[in-house]
Amino acid sequence: MSVARILIHGKWVEAEASSFFRANNPATGEALAMQFPVSKWEDCERALAAAAFAVKELHDIAPAKIAAFLEEYAAAIEAAADEIVKAANEETGLPASPRLKDVELPRTTNQLRQAAAAAREESWKQATIDTARNIRSSFAAIGPVVVFGPNNFPLAFNGISGGDFAAAIVAGNPVIAKAHPLHPNTTRLLAEQAQMAADATGMPKGLVQLLYHVSNEDGLKLVSDARVGAIGFTGSRNAGIHLKRAAEEAGKPIYLEMSSINPVIFLPGTLEENAEVLAKELADSCLAASGQFCTSPNLILLWNGQTSEKFISTVAAIFNERAPQPLLSQNAPHQLSSGTKAFIDGGAQLVTGGKNASGPGYRFTNTLLRTSGKDMLAKPHELQREVFGNVTMITTVSDEKELAAILEKMEGNLTGTIYSAKSGKDDAVYARIESTLRQKVGRLLNDKMPTGVAVSPAMNHGGPFPATSHPGFTSVGIPASISRFAMLQCYDGVREGRLPEILRDKIKNSETWRSIDGAWVRG
Amino acid sequence: MSVARILIHGKWVEAEASSFFRANNPATGEALAMQFPVSKWEDCERALAAAAFAVKELHDIAPAKIAAFLEEYAAAIEAAADEIVKAANEETGLPASPRLKDVELPRTTNQLRQAAAAAREESWKQATIDTARNIRSSFAAIGPVVVFGPNNFPLAFNGISGGDFAAAIVAGNPVIAKAHPLHPNTTRLLAEQAQMAADATGMPKGLVQLLYHVSNEDGLKLVSDARVGAIGFTGSRNAGIHLKRAAEEAGKPIYLEMSSINPVIFLPGTLEENAEVLAKELADSCLAASGQFCTSPNLILLWNGQTSEKFISTVAAIFNERAPQPLLSQNAPHQLSSGTKAFIDGGAQLVTGGKNASGPGYRFTNTLLRTSGKDMLAKPHELQREVFGNVTMITTVSDEKELAAILEKMEGNLTGTIYSAKSGKDDAVYARIESTLRQKVGRLLNDKMPTGVAVSPAMNHGGPFPATSHPGFTSVGIPASISRFAMLQCYDGVREGRLPEILRDKIKNSETWRSIDGAWVRG
Repeated sequence: MSVARILIHGKWVEAEASSFFRANNPATGEALAMQFPVSKWEDCERALAAAAFAVKELHDIAPAKIAAFLEEYAAAIEAAADEIVKAANEETGLPASPRLKDVELPRTTNQLRQAAAAAREESWKQATIDTARNIRSSFAAIGPVVVFGPNNFPLAFNGISGGDFAAAIVAGNPVIAKAHPLHPNTTRLLAEQAQMAADATGMPKGLVQLLYHVSNEDGLKLVSDARVGAIGFTGSRNAGIHLKRAAEEAGKPIYLEMSSINPVIFLPGTLEENAEVLAKELADSCLAASGQFCTSPNLILLWNGQTSEKFISTVAAIFNERAPQPLLSQNAPHQLSSGTKAFIDGGAQLVTGGKNASGPGYRFTNTLLRTSGKDMLAKPHELQREVFGNVTMITTVSDEKELAAILEKMEGNLTGTIYSAKSGKDDAVYARIESTLRQKVGRLLNDKMPTGVAVSPAMNHGGPFPATSHPGFTSVGIPASISRFAMLQCYDGVREGRLPEILRDKIKNSETWRSIDGAWVRG
Repeated sequence: MSVARILIHGKWVEAEASSFFRANNPATGEALAMQFPVSKWEDCERALAAAAFAVKELHDIAPAKIAAFLEEYAAAIEAAADEIVKAANEETGLPASPRLKDVELPRTTNQLRQAAAAAREESWKQATIDTARNIRSSFAAIGPVVVFGPNNFPLAFNGISGGDFAAAIVAGNPVIAKAHPLHPNTTRLLAEQAQMAADATGMPKGLVQLLYHVSNEDGLKLVSDARVGAIGFTGSRNAGIHLKRAAEEAGKPIYLEMSSINPVIFLPGTLEENAEVLAKELADSCLAASGQFCTSPNLILLWNGQTSEKFISTVAAIFNERAPQPLLSQNAPHQLSSGTKAFIDGGAQLVTGGKNASGPGYRFTNTLLRTSGKDMLAKPHELQREVFGNVTMITTVSDEKELAAILEKMEGNLTGTIYSAKSGKDDAVYARIESTLRQKVGRLLNDKMPTGVAVSPAMNHGGPFPATSHPGFTSVGIPASISRFAMLQCYDGVREGRLPEILRDKIKNSETWRSIDGAWVRG
């Protein structure tokens, strides 16, 4: 049986493996053929040494070279799209089309190309010049970035091809990617394209490196290594908290996206206007990818009353009708079952679902629960846990005061949504509750579901803890996401010829926005 | 004997005190008259509740009101300058003039006025608009900010008047200041002006609050409270590390400035050109404020040889000639003595100084030590500790390779300086060592000492851990320092009338720079 090689210092080499693993097909439950190594520390050490070496070579690299690599890589992914999509479909159970081939793969290459454009344009560096004092500063590479990708986006958030990867590369850093062990072969195929693109564009060896799996202990050691510049992690709250503690103890910036229940509030007037359509919109959002989106609405807040009861029945009916889709991991049905049980133990009632579903592979019935506002206030901690999958909680409140109290007790979230009447009937309530919700979420939405995360310079895919580790950063959106992997470098009285190109009085790049003596100037 | 009151929710009230303390005059060693309370948790609780309340009132505040407060406060400090300077002189032993009256107080009011201008201009919000998708984001208030000021700048870095304070206020946050217990009366006088300015400009109660002292345990509890948005701390590495751990465990952003030895490298050619002048320049910088600057050069790197020996003798002679100035705390001479002893135990030789100085108050002889590059490489941890005061280490290296190895092992620093020959003779060495030093420091200087920290938009007073907790932020420089106390808030599909003014299509403020569809536009 073939064992995959790891990518170290520009070469595919045999791992120093402590053990081996295989991925499963979530749609069938069958194990896939290829074996992957769980690396010992020696492999981390090799990757770190090569990354530290690459830092030196990247120090003076021309931004156009970085852009050329990213564009070559995007083209290479497109050329290998069939094989990559096939592998991702096998390893995740996500539909090959439209999801992987027509949505996620184009999103991935689009991100890489936007990143290339940002690398060329250089405005992300926020070059700031005080000519009178000859003090100049800009953002620049922070050092090797370790990226842990999540299970739910095998391409667009993959540690070797996703948003964190692209942002770290634009900032001029080498990346050590740790594959998600649920889709190692997809990651391997992407890394092959990345390395070919790096070779084709003359990038330093060690720009992109790949490990498939490490022990928990080695993971903690890796993120706290002195050679590391920063870490990107998207995954579970439990794993994230451990990595966060280790990295921060060593003084390493770590950006984590961990946990979010994405509250959606329907103000009374909006359901009166449009309950049927909204019920379908909500169910579509909750059940998209079987609820395995970071921004999936897990907590729905409604007013008590007949309109809400009818709405709940409609949502429940849709949940019932739709066939349960595959979950990403073998363990997921068990996690959803115990998460549902914990909600019921906390005082919630099951409306529909709540059990393992029939059919091949890993599935759980589409699950809807409900609580009263009073119950929610009594046990906010128990009832606001993220259960990652097709499990949604509806809470009905008796009045605005109760809703406000629930929002006050809410943890940080990626998103918060308010649907309100077109008539303006809900506007006064909106105005009163908005400020509390605003402080708790990275992105506030009106009248639309949070599951779409556009790759826009104005996007914020971030939010207060525990949604992420710092509410000032976003992991989606270029150029904003780049600054996470950059340090601020100031030059004070440094001689002109020694300044980086971006900080000289006259620069070749006519596209770059720089702040010179207080005004933004282009070129 | 009078006991000072604390400032809570707009009123000067009696503390719930667990004990009381007095400050000393470092120039004489005498205890000062006024007593100050060490607050119990109840006082923290009162401050937190008032701050959380103030957040609501600040949610929609007009930027011009914040600016008016900051300007009123700056004017009030100037009006009370004599009294404030007198108190600061008594409590710190720093010269009333020029240091406190003519340098630090104007710096403080200048910072507040620059902050006011930034509040009015609003460009710090980095408003970013994607008109096609109607996604809009900007930085906005993060929540109550707790500021711990250091011992060494009683005005310009004071928790109630310094850079962290100003940045937190511009971002729209209430501040809970924790006075440094070495200058409580100075802090009280500043807080009086702050509260009068807040009253005069109609700011919410609880915008500025002051505690003098809390137990270590309550300090940790304070920074990890759910109501806190962020924390600013300038002080010792030991205290900083404990606060960092507590805040980060609770998911709170904490910005710390903790420890920096600020390496200064003299390349061989520069000493050949100018040794006498440079020796004086170095000694002036090392002994300014008795070495108690965050950017004081603690580690000097020279090449072995006759020129360096002569240079060392000259520096030593100046160290000897100059009368030791007061240190900030009663404990400082002991700390410098044990720090010097630790260096000697680590292999360093004492060139001059190394003992308590005669004269009243707290003084230590100006101290110069030296090591070889080999010793430094053998014990980098022991020999690169920050000893906060008039203690400087010179290391002579045998060649460039040894220097490069020392730089590789160096921890993160606020600054790094390279002096090189005007003739260009050192340029090749400069080019080879620069990249290693660059990654280790927030600010790289040429041919000047690091002890000046200009309040400029291009300044970076920050650097990699342990200099600070995150190399992407600066604590000096407006507007850059403001973003530390802001969260990124995105509005996705939000109805026009509900957007904050800064994110609407048309805005009244003609000064604001915004990024609209990829281009910076003013007004």
